[in-house]
Amino acid sequence: MSQFPITDKTEITRLPKRGVYDKDVVYSILDEGLFCTLAYARDGQAFQIPTGFCRIGDKLYLHGSVGSFYMRELAEKKPPVSIGVTFIDGLVLARSAFHHSVNYRSVVIFSTPEKVDDADELYKALEVFTNKMQPGRWDDVRKPNSGEWKATMLLSFKIDEASAKVRTGGPKDDEEDYALDIWAGVVPLEIQRKPPIADDVLKAGVALPDYLK
Amino acid sequence: MSQFPITDKTEITRLPKRGVYDKDVVYSILDEGLFCTLAYARDGQAFQIPTGFCRIGDKLYLHGSVGSFYMRELAEKKPPVSIGVTFIDGLVLARSAFHHSVNYRSVVIFSTPEKVDDADELYKALEVFTNKMQPGRWDDVRKPNSGEWKATMLLSFKIDEASAKVRTGGPKDDEEDYALDIWAGVVPLEIQRKPPIADDVLKAGVALPDYLK
Repeated sequence: MSQFPITDKTEITRLPKRGVYDKDVVYSILDEGLFCTLAYARDGQAFQIPTGFCRIGDKLYLHGSVGSFYMRELAEKKPPVSIGVTFIDGLVLARSAFHHSVNYRSVVIFSTPEKVDDADELYKALEVFTNKMQPGRWDDVRKPNSGEWKATMLLSFKIDEASAKVRTGGPKDDEEDYALDIWAGVVPLEIQRKPPIADDVLKAGVALPDYLK
Repeated sequence: MSQFPITDKTEITRLPKRGVYDKDVVYSILDEGLFCTLAYARDGQAFQIPTGFCRIGDKLYLHGSVGSFYMRELAEKKPPVSIGVTFIDGLVLARSAFHHSVNYRSVVIFSTPEKVDDADELYKALEVFTNKMQPGRWDDVRKPNSGEWKATMLLSFKIDEASAKVRTGGPKDDEEDYALDIWAGVVPLEIQRKPPIADDVLKAGVALPDYLK
């Protein structure tokens, strides 16, 4: 499996056994992520923005309004950023308070923004992004018109400095605590899609598409 | 309802109608959050750490190992931080690609870390944190011993510069698009707790506690 190089910034120093540098693992977490957190610094103060994103190959894409202050700042100043995606997959209930934990999968990327001016790349990224959020959606919707494309800014981030951190499995207690009469185990957590709710003003006769059933 | 003051850093400039400064709203999002993202800058480079947390009154608490590089850095350098919590509550499927959105609730706090040396405050924060992740859990578990307390560092962050951003409801399309034969609506998303899985080596006869049923 192809690996990311371990750098000063991406090396997992706390509980290093949980560090994962395999590209397939990093990409699978990114591709499942519903949003990322983009962090960058301005005069020593860190800011963060939660935002949708998608990945194509070794690039991560964000889009936003050309009127967005932070999109413009990123495009113009190209600050070094950190981009994170985290899933909490379960509560790990140990016998001791101290060994309580969570099962999780997280990725952090270090990169810099590049404004995308290529129309094909913009179109492709919006298609991939839309279908990531809802598979099958892009082909079904009214595509952007020229004014909407002009109002949309796309930023790309090369993914070449990245790592994941993953915990799975049950609790690990101190040897003597296994004899205690305390329940221990995992409460799995899952992001669930609930049944779609039609718009109040949905045109009469428009059926729920197959990809939403 | 009590409000946070709007500052240069917390003012919502993009889609300002979604900005919420009510303390009750900010606190409710924080109290539901399973993790936060802490961001801070080192030499102009933003770093971010996903981590568990809890809130007591107007303070947010993080704990970690005294051996953790980032906990020590935060305690010693007290950099200005940004702390974020985000929920994606639904996919908003509009008739046009352009108006696709998500329903979300997010909070961003600006603060600085303070190392907590008071033993009562440390104990209280760990109790609140444990019961936040799993209500009822603290009374049931083996409490930290003196060595475990010594291995635990607690940081507090005053919550006095914070804002929320919230979107709810259905899609908003351009007037002429409502006549299109395209399904529109919302796919609600929810973090679901699944049935608990007992530890493989759970002591015989230990029953699932009521608070997990």
